Formats: sequence, structure tokens, C-alpha cells
Amino acid sequence: MENFKFELDAVDGRSRAGRFMTPHGELRTPVFAPVGTQATVKALTPEQVESTGAKLLLANTYHLYLRPGPEVIAKLGGLHEFMGWQGPILTDSGGYQVFSLSGRREVDEKGVTFQSHLDGSEQRFTPESVIAVQEQLGADIIMAFDECPEPYDRAYNEVAMGRTHAWALRCLAAKQRDDQALFGILQGGIFPDLRAQSAEFIAGLDFPGNAIGGLSVGETKAEMNEMLEVIDPILPEDRPRYLMGVGSPDDIVEAVMRGVDLFDCVLPTRLARNHAALTRQGRMNLRKALYTEDERPLDPDCKCYACSHFTRAYLRHLCVANEMLAGSLLSIHNIHMLIDLTHDLRLAIESGSAAAFAEDFRRDYQKHRPEGI
Amino acid sequence: MENFKFELDAVDGRSRAGRFMTPHGELRTPVFAPVGTQATVKALTPEQVESTGAKLLLANTYHLYLRPGPEVIAKLGGLHEFMGWQGPILTDSGGYQVFSLSGRREVDEKGVTFQSHLDGSEQRFTPESVIAVQEQLGADIIMAFDECPEPYDRAYNEVAMGRTHAWALRCLAAKQRDDQALFGILQGGIFPDLRAQSAEFIAGLDFPGNAIGGLSVGETKAEMNEMLEVIDPILPEDRPRYLMGVGSPDDIVEAVMRGVDLFDCVLPTRLARNHAALTRQGRMNLRKALYTEDERPLDPDCKCYACSHFTRAYLRHLCVANEMLAGSLLSIHNIHMLIDLTHDLRLAIESGSAAAFAEDFRRDYQKHRPEGI
Repeated sequence: MENFKFELDAVDGRSRAGRFMTPHGELRTPVFAPVGTQATVKALTPEQVESTGAKLLLANTYHLYLRPGPEVIAKLGGLHEFMGWQGPILTDSGGYQVFSLSGRREVDEKGVTFQSHLDGSEQRFTPESVIAVQEQLGADIIMAFDECPEPYDRAYNEVAMGRTHAWALRCLAAKQRDDQALFGILQGGIFPDLRAQSAEFIAGLDFPGNAIGGLSVGETKAEMNEMLEVIDPILPEDRPRYLMGVGSPDDIVEAVMRGVDLFDCVLPTRLARNHAALTRQGRMNLRKALYTEDERPLDPDCKCYACSHFTRAYLRHLCVANEMLAGSLLSIHNIHMLIDLTHDLRLAIESGSAAAFAEDFRRDYQKHRPEGI
Repeated sequence: MENFKFELDAVDGRSRAGRFMTPHGELRTPVFAPVGTQATVKALTPEQVESTGAKLLLANTYHLYLRPGPEVIAKLGGLHEFMGWQGPILTDSGGYQVFSLSGRREVDEKGVTFQSHLDGSEQRFTPESVIAVQEQLGADIIMAFDECPEPYDRAYNEVAMGRTHAWALRCLAAKQRDDQALFGILQGGIFPDLRAQSAEFIAGLDFPGNAIGGLSVGETKAEMNEMLEVIDPILPEDRPRYLMGVGSPDDIVEAVMRGVDLFDCVLPTRLARNHAALTRQGRMNLRKALYTEDERPLDPDCKCYACSHFTRAYLRHLCVANEMLAGSLLSIHNIHMLIDLTHDLRLAIESGSAAAFAEDFRRDYQKHRPEGI
């Protein structure tokens, strides 16, 4: 497991600056992974993704299993080769998508039978099959199969947690490749006792990394933060912690302050395609008429390709004219913004000023940039 | 007019290799201009367009007049600054779009009243207003206002040609900036005598370049070639000739063999968004199942970014999954293919082998690449 050594360079309060080794390079944490659901970060070439500073990409097992199929990707040399990304890649287990995207589904102790959202065909995932698919895809970091329930339904969360724990054991047993780091996933909804129980169980299995599932799925930000505080003292310090599906700039800051190292989210690219830009002072809607003749870059403090080459007026024109380039440029900006935020968080942790950084961030972010600024 | 000097480096039969100086750089002809209708080549950043080898872009006056408006672009420093393209730009006059895109329209001797295709509002173009708009946009090459009729209607073509000639004079009189080359446009449908008459009239007005309008609008390839042969001996040899809205690889080769220097067309980018690729052996439909596991580049002889980085299998996956990246990568390939073709045409002209080049090209292109190749 030399490949997956995790070293902490600095700790400040609960926040951590680490390095995680993967077969495709080192990740400096905190790290944010943009999402390439179908083996492409939407609207961007790998070169453009690289220009944002992103080091780690997430791809979705559920989507790639259905199309083009893991055997196709394996035959073409695996995901890195297939999509032309030479840095580290993480695949999820498909668990979340089976519950959020598919049509009818039936869960039993052995696995989940579900309907493809593409053609309605019946499909089945088990812990073993999901590991096999992820081994065919060939990402650096792969995930255990889990069941992600409604956060507020206690009875369901108890059952789903139990199943997730049993499946974690079976995923460990099924795993064959030693050049992939399998992360366990803990669940437990918004129930502190369940979260603690799940963290203890998953931490006890000696995964090289631990993931926090079932958050950012409808609960409040305060509830998410409370769950992170419950989990933090239980998870081993010498393993990376991954908060799945998060997030927004403020969620990332709050989670880093509570000991999280790794993030992924569709937010920056999805917002981009809806013509919204992330900044440290809040979001901007680039379609607004007040930008019609605005000669400033989207964010004057940003060094991304979009901000170094184009005015708000041009971006606004592309948005209003529904040009694809709007989605590409805003995706570059939004990913860069989150990567840049994690870089600054790391610097703050290294210099022992994480709390002050978070305080400043909260003040600016909650202020919300007046649209005209 | 030092800016717009045109020099012939070589002539081979009727085909020409020239250099046209513009305020934003020299164009080596034959030259193909990709189209950036709304001040963006669809789905590509200016960097990506540059990577195709493209030197000249076309933008559409009709679209930019309606949105964002020429005054906005002028205020932001003109088209080059607005869209981040530092090379030469050509704007058309909007004449063709008024006749092909707008709703109701009424033509009179003074100009055209038309309905915006965006909001139905009533708008009016005159030769004078169209020159004023193009002076606000600030392209290097601008076009006279013309009327583009059905190619087969002789009576209409006579009237439209007369109007186009009168408007050409008024455009010349209206023009104020001396850092833009105004090209005249000849019309005449598929009628050799009208084409000859129009070529003589327009050539007599001493434009720094002459454009051929009203072709590639429904007539046969044989008729287009015949019209080019009628015009060729009439147009001055020391001025560039621009065949508007063309074209396909075969049309470009045939037109170069008949004395044309300059081309523009939406074809490469439109085909790309429909998942078709141009090659010298014909078109490929990248959605076909036979590419599912094809590890070869789209075109093994191509040096574009798409062909140097990705397999047919990956491109096919992007197309079938309707990912935006498919349109971007195929646009890069298709534009590069046409630019590369004009480069090879130039080399052939310089070495006196244009006829042989065209013969070889026709044989390969008509063969049509078996899809499995």
C-alpha cells in the first residue's frame, strides 16, 4: 500500500493539510475533484480541466456501467487512457445513483435490482459486481457499495446502515487489484448515534480512506456540520476523509474546519451550464442585464483562463445567446474557484491560521457580492 | 491601402497562392475561415480555434446587430477585443441572413425592412446602415450589402443584381474607416450572362477584394463550377476572390482550381455538432456502433488535438452520450481538416502540381472511406 500512503504535513485545530499518494500522482489535501460523470468533465477537454488546477477527477460507475460498459473501457486501457486524463481518478460505487436516478428498484440483502434510466432495462448491482466494475474501470480510488437513504427517516437509516456495513465487508473481500485504494463509506442520516456507530464500524475495517455518504442530500447545513463533528474524533487521523458530493464554497470551508480532506461535486459545472459563477463573495448570475457593457473580468481577483481573457460583457453575451462556450468558460472559472479555495485553505492550515481564514471567508461569502461590483 | 496589399506568390493554371495583408496579420491564400456567428466559433475557445491553424474568422453582422448590438461591441473595443481573437476577422453584410433567417421582409430600392428572428421586432438594413454597423464591429474585411435571390429565378435575379450593384456604390460612398477592406459582392444566380455582367460591374468598382455571393444556395455543384469559370477571367487577378458560404472539401478544391482564394462555411462546426467528421476520404458518422471499441484516432493521418489525444471509441462514446465535448472535439478536427486541405492546396500550387493534387483528391474523396477503415 505504499501507493496510498497518506501523510499529514500540518494540522490546525481539526483541519488538516496532507498528501495522498496514488499510482497516478500525489494529491495535496484538502482537494476538490470536479465530476466527469460520463468520462468527461462536461464541456471541457482534459487540457482545460488541467488548466483549472484540478488534480483529481471523479467518474460515475453507474453511468459508465450502463454506457459504454466497463468491458469497453477495460479493453481500451482503462479510464485514464479512455478519457485522456493522466492524473488520479476516483470512481463512486453507483450506490447513490441507483437510489437517485434509476426507475423502479428493489433492495435485498444481496444487492439492488434497478431499472436503467437510459432504456428501462433491468440491471443488478451487488457489492461484488460493483467492485468488479470498478476494477475494470481502473480508477485510483474506488468506493464500497452503499445504500444512501433519506436523511430524516431513522428506521430506514438503521436498516440501510446495517446493509452498508455488511456490504463494506463483502467489497473488501471481493477486491482483487492492489493498485486501487478502496474507501469505505459510512452512513447514518442526521442521527448522531447512528453516525458514530457507522464511523466506528467503518474505521475498524482498516480502509486506506474513509468516506462520508448520505450528506448534502436534503439536510440543513447545521445538521451536516453536526454530523461531521460527531464523526471527526472517531475516524483515524492517518487516513484521508472524503465527504461525497460536497460542495459549495461554504460547505467545503466548514467541512475542512471539521477534519475533511477530499471533496467532489457537480456544482461548479452544473452552475456553469446554468450561467452562474462562483466567487468568494457569493454567486453571480451572468445573464443579468447590468453586465451588458461591463468590461471587467468576471472576478478581478481570479487567474483562470476565463477571467484572464474575457469581460463580463462577453460572458453575458454568450449566456444570453445560449452559446456552448458560456458553459465551457464558466466551468473553467467555477472549478478553478474551488481548487483555488482549497489551495488557500491548505496555506492557512500550514501557517496555523485556518480559523482566521474561515472567519474571513464566512464574512465575505455571507455578504454576497452586490451584482454590480 | 498598404494594409490590404494582395500579392500572388504562385499561379498554377487558374489556381493561385497569395498573401493578403490585414491590420491583424497576413493571410496566406487559399484560406478557409471558420464561422463565429455570434462572436464565438461554437463550442471552442479562441485558443482551441487557433490550434486548428485557422487564421481568419467570420462573424455575422445580422446576428451581432440584433444581439448584443454593434454599439455594445464598439464600446468594448470592437470584435477582436470583445471575442478575444487577435487575428483577422471578416464580417458579412447581413444580406444573406435577412433573406434566409428573418420573418417577414420587404425589399425596396433603399434597403430591407425585416423582422428579427429573435423577438419579431421590425428592423431595417440599408447599404449605409450596414456599413455603419460593420464599422462599429471593426472587422478587417467587411462586405457590401447585397440581395441574395433564389438561384433559378431569372427575373428575380435580374432585379436583385441591379439592386446589389446600386447598393455596392452606396456602400463605397458610405464607408469611412480606412483600416477595413470593403469587398464587393457579385450575384447573378446560375445565369452565365448575369454572372458575367455582375462580375464586370463589381470588378469595375475597384474594391480591394471581390466576393461571389448567391452560390452554394441550392444549385448543383456543376452549376456552381460553371459560374466560377464564367467569373474567373473577368475578376482582376491582383485582388482576392472570396466564395461566400463554401464549403465542403470538394467544393473548396474545385473552387481553388477555378481561381478562388477565400472561403467561409458553418459546415465543419455544424457537422461536428451532428457528430459527423470530415476526412479526405469522405465523411464519418461517429455514432456508428462499429466504432464502439475502435482504438484508432478518428483520422490516423490527422495532427489535430482530437486525433492526437482520443480514440474513435471515446469520440463515439461522447457522441452517443450527447456530451458537449463531442461537438468541441469534432469541431476542432473538422476545422483543422479544411485548414490542412487549403495548406496542401497552396503547396501544390507553389510546386506547380495543383491539377495532379486535385485529381488525387477527387479520386480519394469520391471513393468514400469505408466506415470501418
